[in-house]
Amino acid sequence: MHIVCNQKILSQKISICQKATSNKTTTDILKGILIVAKENFLKITGYNLEISIETSMDVDVIKEGSIVVNSRLFGDIIKKLPDTFIEIEVINNIMCIKYQNSKFEINCDSSNDFPIIPRLNSSKKYSISHNQLKSMIKQTSFAISTDSTKPTLTGELLEIQEKKISLVAIDGYRLSVRSCFNKTDLGYDKCIIPGKSLNEINSLLPSNDDNLVIEFDDKYALFKFMDISITTRVLDGEFVDYKKLLPKEYTTKVTVNTKEILDSLERASLLSQMQKSNLIKLSIREDKLLITSNSDKGNIYEEVNINLEGELLDIAFNSRYLIEGIKNIQSEEITIEFTTNVNPCIIKPVDNIDYTYLLLPVRISSNI
Amino acid sequence: MHIVCNQKILSQKISICQKATSNKTTTDILKGILIVAKENFLKITGYNLEISIETSMDVDVIKEGSIVVNSRLFGDIIKKLPDTFIEIEVINNIMCIKYQNSKFEINCDSSNDFPIIPRLNSSKKYSISHNQLKSMIKQTSFAISTDSTKPTLTGELLEIQEKKISLVAIDGYRLSVRSCFNKTDLGYDKCIIPGKSLNEINSLLPSNDDNLVIEFDDKYALFKFMDISITTRVLDGEFVDYKKLLPKEYTTKVTVNTKEILDSLERASLLSQMQKSNLIKLSIREDKLLITSNSDKGNIYEEVNINLEGELLDIAFNSRYLIEGIKNIQSEEITIEFTTNVNPCIIKPVDNIDYTYLLLPVRISSNI
Repeated sequence: MHIVCNQKILSQKISICQKATSNKTTTDILKGILIVAKENFLKITGYNLEISIETSMDVDVIKEGSIVVNSRLFGDIIKKLPDTFIEIEVINNIMCIKYQNSKFEINCDSSNDFPIIPRLNSSKKYSISHNQLKSMIKQTSFAISTDSTKPTLTGELLEIQEKKISLVAIDGYRLSVRSCFNKTDLGYDKCIIPGKSLNEINSLLPSNDDNLVIEFDDKYALFKFMDISITTRVLDGEFVDYKKLLPKEYTTKVTVNTKEILDSLERASLLSQMQKSNLIKLSIREDKLLITSNSDKGNIYEEVNINLEGELLDIAFNSRYLIEGIKNIQSEEITIEFTTNVNPCIIKPVDNIDYTYLLLPVRISSNI
Repeated sequence: MHIVCNQKILSQKISICQKATSNKTTTDILKGILIVAKENFLKITGYNLEISIETSMDVDVIKEGSIVVNSRLFGDIIKKLPDTFIEIEVINNIMCIKYQNSKFEINCDSSNDFPIIPRLNSSKKYSISHNQLKSMIKQTSFAISTDSTKPTLTGELLEIQEKKISLVAIDGYRLSVRSCFNKTDLGYDKCIIPGKSLNEINSLLPSNDDNLVIEFDDKYALFKFMDISITTRVLDGEFVDYKKLLPKEYTTKVTVNTKEILDSLERASLLSQMQKSNLIKLSIREDKLLITSNSDKGNIYEEVNINLEGELLDIAFNSRYLIEGIKNIQSEEITIEFTTNVNPCIIKPVDNIDYTYLLLPVRISSNI
């Protein structure tokens, strides 16, 4: 292999693929990235057996070939080179990087030893904008379970339902659903994407309204945007039937300014954080919501103006869970629907049907 | 105590004094900050028995008084309040913070339990600009020793010599001296300031050319700037006689572009970091400096143009120490003076006499 390429672009491309290599592995080859020079392209791939990230760039190929090079060392070196054209030549698994009057030699591995990158057997493609997928991940991923005894809940359900594409996360205490809508009927399909993979995808997705393409089969899912292809394994098993969990009716409905309730909850959580339970109490009155929290360090009492429909109620929550559900809502106002103080509440933006957050209360004695 | 004050200013003042409180201590009172309302001022003090930071602000004092409140909780609460005037009232060691229709109550400690803040017995004051002290700390503090068996070296020597004020740090491998110059003769005086205190001072010093005032006696040093007073204990004992360590002559002198040698050293250090010794080799030739480093991952060979005065030389250094000494030099060119490859080298900016960095080489076998 022998190429001449631009330092800055190569450095960007390596940093993209590095996200799929792990420095923690004991398998040296998985610390490497695969680079393949062919025709006028350099293809760069990182793969940690869970997720693979592929990208490519235009280069001058003097001699075609491929090699696996330590991802961190290669990335660090290229990043520190002067912003100029650099020459990379591989002879006998030694990569020589030449620039100005200096040179680097790195011991590499043969590309034959690199694991085979998974390819999909799928025919159906779904399209969605970068920004839509970014906000779908942001509004749900915090509710992904970290409990490895329930493996399907360590990922998110990606569900296609006619004109709706949704991401769903559940961790046993709360459920977060974010959807976006398509013009045409897409039928029904679903898979479970690992939480870690969604985070990597989110970190690489640009913030704009261009579209990406999503494909999946029963083993892998593929996300393609710009010149990046991310392939992740999907999780085996059945996801919880989340629609059964959503209550059909309510007896108390509160409409409140998003920023006002969030500010009050965040202040109240300063004290609740000091107990293990993270407990805050909500007392719903005629036109006010009273938020209180007590610890051995002190007490807080907050009043927030609300619009009440239905009955008065006293209920308690883990403050962190309540804040996380509200924090990512853009809408100026939210509604919170309750039935009793032992049943889940439902939080939604007022002007939008694309987001639903369900949260279980904490049982407390009746004398709050 | 009963006051009304501005939320934003109070929040800033607390964050300044928090730097002198420790959350790691088991002594609850040291996690607190002392606040004293008197006349039209609120004075706020953090003190961890090593360093105290005092500042003050204008407030409406309805009733004078003082209290010690948990620094982190108080700071977090005030930071999250709406940007408005807030009322703080203390009754029976309970602080009540009122804003809009809400309130916080924090359990506090009596100000009688707070340790007594040290005061200096000094008459001599030294003046220096904020920016000068900031760069003096930045160019020397990385060479402070972390070896607690040599306590004086865990601080820096602050030395007044006629028209010169210097900071000196030594860690057994290198020595860094940065000076600034005064118009009038200041006589001779010195003390040793703990490294941690210098870092806190640096983090609070604004970047401008206004002057601060430094005072010290045999127990404490005081740094006063804006409305902030920082008092730190000084370290007992004699500092190393650093002037004896500086070589008087050289046999090889190299003049080199600062950015070029730094870039090359940083690339070479990518490989040297992979060995414990961090070793890089310098080969000084007629008009070139060759920098090489080898590890089991690969090799690097860098060429840098130089101006040579004197003899050719092969010498090796710990790359991190070499980089740290050069990194903070603003001057476009530096000189490096050598005698033999087992004696220290001296690095200085070309156009300035205010900075000197001495570094011991690493002994290597003669066949490099």
